[in-house]
Amino acid sequence: MFEICPLEWRYGSEEMRKLFSRENITSTRLKVEVALAQGLSRAGIIPSWIPEKLEKTVEKVKIERIDELEGKLGHDIMAMVMSLVEVSGEAGKYVHLGATSYDIVDTAWAIIMRDALKIVQRKTVKIIRTLIDYAEKYKETLMIGRTHGQHALPITLGFKFANYVYEISRSLERINESTKRVIRGKISGAVGTMAAWGNRGFIVEEETLRMFNLKPHQISTQIAPRDGFAEIICNLAILGSQLDRLALEVRELMRPEIDEIAEGVGRRVGSSTMPQKRNPVTAEKISGLAKVLRSQVLIALENIPLWHERDLTNSSSERFLLPHSFIVIDEILDSTIRLLKNLIIKPDKMRKNIEITGGRVMAEAIMIKLVEKGLARHKAHEILREITRKAEERNIHLLEALVEDERISRYMNRGEIEDALKPENYLGEIEKIIERTVKYAEKIIGNVR
Amino acid sequence: MFEICPLEWRYGSEEMRKLFSRENITSTRLKVEVALAQGLSRAGIIPSWIPEKLEKTVEKVKIERIDELEGKLGHDIMAMVMSLVEVSGEAGKYVHLGATSYDIVDTAWAIIMRDALKIVQRKTVKIIRTLIDYAEKYKETLMIGRTHGQHALPITLGFKFANYVYEISRSLERINESTKRVIRGKISGAVGTMAAWGNRGFIVEEETLRMFNLKPHQISTQIAPRDGFAEIICNLAILGSQLDRLALEVRELMRPEIDEIAEGVGRRVGSSTMPQKRNPVTAEKISGLAKVLRSQVLIALENIPLWHERDLTNSSSERFLLPHSFIVIDEILDSTIRLLKNLIIKPDKMRKNIEITGGRVMAEAIMIKLVEKGLARHKAHEILREITRKAEERNIHLLEALVEDERISRYMNRGEIEDALKPENYLGEIEKIIERTVKYAEKIIGNVR
Amino acid sequence: MFEICPLEWRYGSEEMRKLFSRENITSTRLKVEVALAQGLSRAGIIPSWIPEKLEKTVEKVKIERIDELEGKLGHDIMAMVMSLVEVSGEAGKYVHLGATSYDIVDTAWAIIMRDALKIVQRKTVKIIRTLIDYAEKYKETLMIGRTHGQHALPITLGFKFANYVYEISRSLERINESTKRVIRGKISGAVGTMAAWGNRGFIVEEETLRMFNLKPHQISTQIAPRDGFAEIICNLAILGSQLDRLALEVRELMRPEIDEIAEGVGRRVGSSTMPQKRNPVTAEKISGLAKVLRSQVLIALENIPLWHERDLTNSSSERFLLPHSFIVIDEILDSTIRLLKNLIIKPDKMRKNIEITGGRVMAEAIMIKLVEKGLARHKAHEILREITRKAEERNIHLLEALVEDERISRYMNRGEIEDALKPENYLGEIEKIIERTVKYAEKIIGNVR
Amino acid sequence: MFEICPLEWRYGSEEMRKLFSRENITSTRLKVEVALAQGLSRAGIIPSWIPEKLEKTVEKVKIERIDELEGKLGHDIMAMVMSLVEVSGEAGKYVHLGATSYDIVDTAWAIIMRDALKIVQRKTVKIIRTLIDYAEKYKETLMIGRTHGQHALPITLGFKFANYVYEISRSLERINESTKRVIRGKISGAVGTMAAWGNRGFIVEEETLRMFNLKPHQISTQIAPRDGFAEIICNLAILGSQLDRLALEVRELMRPEIDEIAEGVGRRVGSSTMPQKRNPVTAEKISGLAKVLRSQVLIALENIPLWHERDLTNSSSERFLLPHSFIVIDEILDSTIRLLKNLIIKPDKMRKNIEITGGRVMAEAIMIKLVEKGLARHKAHEILREITRKAEERNIHLLEALVEDERISRYMNRGEIEDALKPENYLGEIEKIIERTVKYAEKIIGNVR
Repeated sequence: MFEICPLEWRYGSEEMRKLFSRENITSTRLKVEVALAQGLSRAGIIPSWIPEKLEKTVEKVKIERIDELEGKLGHDIMAMVMSLVEVSGEAGKYVHLGATSYDIVDTAWAIIMRDALKIVQRKTVKIIRTLIDYAEKYKETLMIGRTHGQHALPITLGFKFANYVYEISRSLERINESTKRVIRGKISGAVGTMAAWGNRGFIVEEETLRMFNLKPHQISTQIAPRDGFAEIICNLAILGSQLDRLALEVRELMRPEIDEIAEGVGRRVGSSTMPQKRNPVTAEKISGLAKVLRSQVLIALENIPLWHERDLTNSSSERFLLPHSFIVIDEILDSTIRLLKNLIIKPDKMRKNIEITGGRVMAEAIMIKLVEKGLARHKAHEILREITRKAEERNIHLLEALVEDERISRYMNRGEIEDALKPENYLGEIEKIIERTVKYAEKIIGNVR
Repeated sequence: MFEICPLEWRYGSEEMRKLFSRENITSTRLKVEVALAQGLSRAGIIPSWIPEKLEKTVEKVKIERIDELEGKLGHDIMAMVMSLVEVSGEAGKYVHLGATSYDIVDTAWAIIMRDALKIVQRKTVKIIRTLIDYAEKYKETLMIGRTHGQHALPITLGFKFANYVYEISRSLERINESTKRVIRGKISGAVGTMAAWGNRGFIVEEETLRMFNLKPHQISTQIAPRDGFAEIICNLAILGSQLDRLALEVRELMRPEIDEIAEGVGRRVGSSTMPQKRNPVTAEKISGLAKVLRSQVLIALENIPLWHERDLTNSSSERFLLPHSFIVIDEILDSTIRLLKNLIIKPDKMRKNIEITGGRVMAEAIMIKLVEKGLARHKAHEILREITRKAEERNIHLLEALVEDERISRYMNRGEIEDALKPENYLGEIEKIIERTVKYAEKIIGNVR
Repeated sequence: MFEICPLEWRYGSEEMRKLFSRENITSTRLKVEVALAQGLSRAGIIPSWIPEKLEKTVEKVKIERIDELEGKLGHDIMAMVMSLVEVSGEAGKYVHLGATSYDIVDTAWAIIMRDALKIVQRKTVKIIRTLIDYAEKYKETLMIGRTHGQHALPITLGFKFANYVYEISRSLERINESTKRVIRGKISGAVGTMAAWGNRGFIVEEETLRMFNLKPHQISTQIAPRDGFAEIICNLAILGSQLDRLALEVRELMRPEIDEIAEGVGRRVGSSTMPQKRNPVTAEKISGLAKVLRSQVLIALENIPLWHERDLTNSSSERFLLPHSFIVIDEILDSTIRLLKNLIIKPDKMRKNIEITGGRVMAEAIMIKLVEKGLARHKAHEILREITRKAEERNIHLLEALVEDERISRYMNRGEIEDALKPENYLGEIEKIIERTVKYAEKIIGNVR
Repeated sequence: MFEICPLEWRYGSEEMRKLFSRENITSTRLKVEVALAQGLSRAGIIPSWIPEKLEKTVEKVKIERIDELEGKLGHDIMAMVMSLVEVSGEAGKYVHLGATSYDIVDTAWAIIMRDALKIVQRKTVKIIRTLIDYAEKYKETLMIGRTHGQHALPITLGFKFANYVYEISRSLERINESTKRVIRGKISGAVGTMAAWGNRGFIVEEETLRMFNLKPHQISTQIAPRDGFAEIICNLAILGSQLDRLALEVRELMRPEIDEIAEGVGRRVGSSTMPQKRNPVTAEKISGLAKVLRSQVLIALENIPLWHERDLTNSSSERFLLPHSFIVIDEILDSTIRLLKNLIIKPDKMRKNIEITGGRVMAEAIMIKLVEKGLARHKAHEILREITRKAEERNIHLLEALVEDERISRYMNRGEIEDALKPENYLGEIEKIIERTVKYAEKIIGNVR
């Protein structure tokens, strides 16, 4: 065997990769076969001793044997069923009775995705909690707010983190809400009518899914509706893109010219040829993998319009879609946790950077004061636009430019101007906004089951 | 002016197109400016007579003047503000005080999207209701279920429709749930701190949004978080892809070789050169536009990772994203309503098509009977696989092939086989499944506000 | 180790999978390190005995050791370099001198992609050749042409295949043309200036790449420009989508109601529960994997706008992009070859299906005759539209409807009508068109190096 | 009428928007109808006086009348044909004879796209020429090269521009090469067989296309193969993404902390509330619109796998695809031209920024010297990694750290170190690389027809 896909050795936690390993997928599918036997037995369709027997024999099924049989039969689930039959003696007579392959496949996906979503939820909660800590810890740490990459107005670092608290909490809420649509079993036979089980189909469905504490899809074709898969993948792609935004924040703020935040690199080598390099490679990996996640959305959307009671074109693509999406988000989540943990914060540099535009970032504050004093807002805006440009050209501090301009000094003396130019005086409701954001996030965190 | 984009003259209902017209976007933004004045006034920041005055002058603002000013200022919202100032006399002094452009833009989007989503919800409900009617009306209308494009097992037409009831209801539920995250105002100033309003920011926010009965985002950068836009677009793309699936169903079933369902074409010309043509062009339009919708998801996802307190790269792309997505889904919804209304159903042809494989589609039913009689499921499967293939090759009815095969006749006599081969005897729980699906859908419909 | 990605065990030929295995990627990179030493030596920068020495020691490098070192160093290429150094004694002193990691990585990609593209070209040629054979063999095999899924006018099966000959040849031409832009080495150091090699950079570049018979990129940043990767992936996605179209053709024509073409299934099991099923699963796999390919385009496009002299966000995503795209197209190509080889063609059924609309598909032929006789084209179109609809409603053959309609019989007698209604008389230039298409394709095939 | 899509009033040059206006699309289609008459006449199928007559009457066709007729007929091309018939008297008898709608539509697209591609090529050449000028003008202007957003090694601004010269030239070459596949007429009738023209189809095709100097597709279904559209859109999306990269370069280098390059803003207002703001809004628009372009690729790819001799799902989506893609790239191109023209270059700041890491960016240069002196490369790397980190921690210049370290001073004296630390001494082959790049680009420019 080769190693080709980086999911095999490079990305994803052990627990998540295990969930989407062939081994776990196969063993989960076999569990569904056993549960189906349980359902059939409780519905009185097959003898009651069967399920217990199968529960034991199921362990004897070997992936190699399944592969071998698939080579002959050309059908992976059929091969799995036959492998189970082979080791089950008399009990094998009833294996898979009345079920279609996707009763097994989709119910197994629901079980695996439930576990996978729990991991996603847990790690997302961890990220939000860390962000909340940072939001509170740095709620007074002044820094410049940037729009268009240009200096805008002062904020605090805690406020910046609180925005991520909010954004990521919204993703968590979306994921929480999606489970009731997506984590459902599908036990309904070849075209969804339960025909093989006569008038006992609802019992088979209920009793089979009871084993896994799953609710059923209310109706299905041969397969569970694919909008659910699309919803999940969209939600993961949105979450990944938000963490991409956080990673981008770090990557930008770590530029040596800015140098406000840095990804801790420890003993890591930055470049194979430039000895001095320290690179934000964890953050860059997050941004890189987010592109992979965004691309998966297309597969998921194209898989919705299947033919009639289903065609098979979702099958090959989903062999990639689910493992790749979940393991990639898992790597993104773990990397974000590590990134946040090793973050180096440089409040001094933040304070210093606010000043590099010579006070011009406080122009709005002056404008507001002038309006208070009676000047029209648009006039004040125009005057300040002119003064800030001149200050920039003449390379003098805005304070000086303001003081010497009659249109300002008519309304404000130097002391008032100095006060208005202090960033710490112009932070609005930052602390209360952080508070209400944290409250909002904690409510969502509390809803994670 | 040219006409370039088909949204201008070809696609979308009057009501939806109006919502996303420049005129409505501008007038909604102006309403937000007035509401902001209301908020500022109630917070005691500006004189109380201002809002009422602005409410009157706002009508005098002309798009042409905004365009003219934008030509000079290079900033569309600044141009709009100046246009309002120009017509507002003394009241103009306070227009836009402490607000950033996206306080106006994003709050206006929330208002417009709320209206747009109501249209989407209303039309989706209409489609679901029609599908429910069809599901109930045709619950006993036999037809073949198809997987891989091949005949699988019998279903009923009502059951087929019920699957769409379920799928589309799930989309409706998603849209319903998203509004609490997405339909929120954003009144928080240049970088989200509300700094210009001192300690009265929360009042400004609350009172401004009260005008529109909107809740605020709990925190924001310069703009509302873009995961919300992505969520909406994903939901619309999923819905569009589901309706694509329905359209695909019609297009396939209307093939002359199948001819079970047809899109009514009335007097429409099918081809400019082939006089006989009747084409499912409404259904094809739905499938075509669904591709456009799916493509929009990428824009929405790429707009999430913006720089710091925002960069402007979402701006140009969203000028396309929101109007195009909502008007395209609107056209898809209206087309689906029309398609369903004019659907021609051919139960006789459905019944007839079940037979074209000479009873082979009932093989599972025989297999189940054999298992009841004591044969192992996998053995029964293998025997029937062999018999069905032979019946196909010899071009005889499965009944004959079964009767003459000793492995079958040992267990079942001709009468039993005949019974087992009747499609109407092998419909499982179709009616009850339809019932529970309709119940599920009606609950979701009931939640539409 | 788990098995997670289906590339590991399920999809892709041995030769293609081997190319993108970690082992081959690593050994190709090591070859580039050796070639670089050759280049350095020929430029007189390092002693001349070094390259030969490294060529021998390179075999001793173990992937396990690289992994171990990467764990410590956090840099995969640095780890590989150190592994080589460890086994190279004195010669190790000069390994990787003046090179940046992506000199190695991108030059290795060029080598691997050249091999991979050769496989793609070879298999594409094979498909085109088979299609040419079919086009010629079936050039007179009548069948109905279908537009909108509705019967349009007669064609021949050979003509249908010839369209695929044309379309796929165009893809081959695109791929051929792309190689001169894409298959280029990158030996230019950390930011592309060749600074470490003083004034001997061009010699190092030329001599290193001579080992692989590669031309260099004319300039680069730290990495080769990523538009080349995007071009390749776009070309593969287009090719994949064309083969998706071919697969779709088979899937549709294999519907039991149509039954003109079938995918041969041999002894393959169609369904785990429906014994009669024969499913076009190879064709469906092609369509499914084409979705995966289309999604990859996004990653490739998003990787173009990297920061300055590069950022690392292409790195993680390309670990997926290249192996997945090439192995998926490889599986699609092999599956298409198999699909074509096992295709079952049913000329009788094709002939029969032409008739199912009772001659109405020949309406254009009658229209043309009427115009020849002096009727205006639009009048003839209108009359025939009316007559065909009536014939359909009354369920009579178009011949009868035409004969009894005075507007027709005025111009044409029964014999003339009968002649005009013969599909074989209305095939236009089909044979010559096939001929020129084959000629066109053969010219492109001839250009494959 | 509303104004909904920003293509109507906001984006795109007059010339490009005109090409994709309904008016031009309709008049081009009408020209194809006239040319078809010419072809038919030269083939001896219709009287020779017809074409000239139609050429005159064609001007009388009104879009309003077409709309009106489409309302009745439900078919846009049929409506156009009837409108032409109505104004053409006796000549109207032969309009559209033997043609299918897409003979007209696709041939018109080829004509329009040829014009559109010429605009794209012309503007792309203009951008490349400007970049060449800049590459040459600033070939010695020192600046820091950045990888991962971190300082790497010195380059020159001219070298940076030359990379864009190369990358964009490659796009130009791709576009040049694509025209032979894409700009082809399609005159072959309803299913591509030319049946209506008997044995004179090749003459009709040739003579019709001769009017436009177009070559034909060698074969077609009802429509031209859609891989061509996909190729064009991919090429435009790649070009757009490259210009996105250039815009991103400007946006980043304009950050106040970096401040090496700025987008000239003139009198433009930066923010509606922050008077000091100067924002790179042109560059941001380019990056924003590139996202729109990337999304179009999906539509184009999904349009390849159409059914049989075509289905209609490409129709609605292409009404968006072509106008949007071409006008959006046009806006991107024009914006890039403007951006480049108004670029403010700050060589002093560039020089200054090289120094902010205290000489550490020259670590590779020292490493190379040490290897020349006999130290092993990996040892030198390790030592320098240690020394650069210490220099950073102690906040001293690398020169001092090197001089005082015995492992260095053993090999190099202060003078040698000082020399090695000079960025201008470590530029490798920059000038020659620029030269060969310009030569390469000029060859491609020379191939634009």
